Amino acid sequence: MSASWPRSAVTPSLGEIQAPVKDRLGQVALELRRIVVADFPMIEQISEHLLLMKGKLFRPTLTLLASSIEGRPAPRAATFGALVELVHLATLVHDDSVDHSALRRGMPTVNSLFSHQISVIMGDFLYSRAVAELARLGDVEVLRTLASATNEMTVGEMRQLGAVDALQFSEDDYEALIRAKTASLLSAACEIGCIAGAPDFRSVLSRYGRCLGMAFQVADDLLDYTATEASMGKPAGSDLREHKVTLPLIAVLPKMTQAERREVETLFASSNTDEDQISRVAGIVTEHGGLEYARNRGEQFAEEAHAALADLPESTASAALHDAIAYAVDRSQ
Amino acid sequence: MSASWPRSAVTPSLGEIQAPVKDRLGQVALELRRIVVADFPMIEQISEHLLLMKGKLFRPTLTLLASSIEGRPAPRAATFGALVELVHLATLVHDDSVDHSALRRGMPTVNSLFSHQISVIMGDFLYSRAVAELARLGDVEVLRTLASATNEMTVGEMRQLGAVDALQFSEDDYEALIRAKTASLLSAACEIGCIAGAPDFRSVLSRYGRCLGMAFQVADDLLDYTATEASMGKPAGSDLREHKVTLPLIAVLPKMTQAERREVETLFASSNTDEDQISRVAGIVTEHGGLEYARNRGEQFAEEAHAALADLPESTASAALHDAIAYAVDRSQ
Repeated sequence: MSASWPRSAVTPSLGEIQAPVKDRLGQVALELRRIVVADFPMIEQISEHLLLMKGKLFRPTLTLLASSIEGRPAPRAATFGALVELVHLATLVHDDSVDHSALRRGMPTVNSLFSHQISVIMGDFLYSRAVAELARLGDVEVLRTLASATNEMTVGEMRQLGAVDALQFSEDDYEALIRAKTASLLSAACEIGCIAGAPDFRSVLSRYGRCLGMAFQVADDLLDYTATEASMGKPAGSDLREHKVTLPLIAVLPKMTQAERREVETLFASSNTDEDQISRVAGIVTEHGGLEYARNRGEQFAEEAHAALADLPESTASAALHDAIAYAVDRSQ
Repeated sequence: MSASWPRSAVTPSLGEIQAPVKDRLGQVALELRRIVVADFPMIEQISEHLLLMKGKLFRPTLTLLASSIEGRPAPRAATFGALVELVHLATLVHDDSVDHSALRRGMPTVNSLFSHQISVIMGDFLYSRAVAELARLGDVEVLRTLASATNEMTVGEMRQLGAVDALQFSEDDYEALIRAKTASLLSAACEIGCIAGAPDFRSVLSRYGRCLGMAFQVADDLLDYTATEASMGKPAGSDLREHKVTLPLIAVLPKMTQAERREVETLFASSNTDEDQISRVAGIVTEHGGLEYARNRGEQFAEEAHAALADLPESTASAALHDAIAYAVDRSQ
């Protein structure tokens, strides 16, 4: 039972990870559509827009894979996967509204296409639909898991909003934030999958999902420094533009010269976006090894995720869960 | 079994209605505090502010009274009452944020005291805490009732935001709106009370709560025309100021002269607040009998609420539920 990470030469594609559950992912998409149905045209229209941008269904993929590790996934796993994605969508709608983001996955956000007001209520609609559907199904364990993750996400978001001086944000603060904001839902996605097919592996996969989520978010924050707008579907450098401090910057703050530190402080104190300034700060972070530091930390989380899977029975599903780690760390979008 | 409404000479006070469940309302307040606890200072601070403005606990009063109509209320009714109030608070926080309201019950709103962003996330925190607590208790019926009411409320709010030409809003549209926005939660408050002590009366009290909620909201919309800022805790005329069309205006729109109609259209087309214009439109509504029309419609809903209570066993709780109708219709704040 080694904790070292058997990294493959080629990063697995999402398609390869999804292959064992491809048909059931189709069901997830149908379930999503069924659950958000409303008899009100504007809600239908916004739902349609959201379902178009729904992206890669990474979370439902985890739910379906987790439900399959003992070879007997419950049919309701697809519905649970849809509900996890729905909670994720509700969160994105509110996050974009709070951050005034204009683009998400290359498409206009609800707040930019409709209004800030409509985003708030649409997020509430999606979340309360998810809860109503869970209540209808009557599976209290799934509800508990998802409700606790959702509540943790709101506390995480509040941590971010409540940071008075962003540059005082420590690595511990950052980890608490991404654990709440991202890892909690990926963990819940895995745990809920186990409830629907592999109950003995619930705590193991909850741990796996949490580590995977940490690795996933560190990689996301790295991409904000390294990726292009074309591959991200939103402008690169968004975090610096929105004065969000992530691991690459946190890691190098103590290493900066006074002049460099002043450059960073000026960026964080200004309310206007100066693209040159963002490039200069990104350059400082890179030069001091901030990207490398974050990459290493991401690898550690990836290794913990692998370790959590050590006792899983061999199957295409568990192989795909292993591959999901490499995908989370190495993906380019 | 008469459907006529035995109106008493003196409007009962809220204190009189709450008398049969006074001690248990104290428990509701304690439960509210217990449920919103978080280990994050800013959330604590905002919760504290919300609990101070929590107002009259009208919805938990209904839950407790409903749980008592057969004389054997379940102890958990107080927790359920707190959860109904929590959902109500979450909705208020988002509504104030969507409407950019500055005052609520005479106190600054979360959006004005903190920020719009914090309101969105705080509403999410409160709602997800309520769901997490319901999931912990594992009472699926209560969860179903509350989730369905919450979802209905979001659809109602969307109806309001989606009204492109507010002056085209019909009386049917208005009733659909207030049924979703207000009556659904009052109905759920009563129904949940029955689940915790009087299950045979569940559908009867659900109907009572819905009619009571309709009467309550019509009275609220009337107060916006007639009350003073001192008694309301927010400026009178807010609805006209926010371009919200309520029953008094809807009722008289067809009776207006062309000049009067133009006056109304000018108000609804302008983005600046002209207090004289608001007074003039309020005057037009009053002269054409809009307030009287709404008062009569409120009385009809009150009568339906009374009719729903016809078969209730006699008790202090059922007397208080009768009194709650007069309170809802005649209250001055």
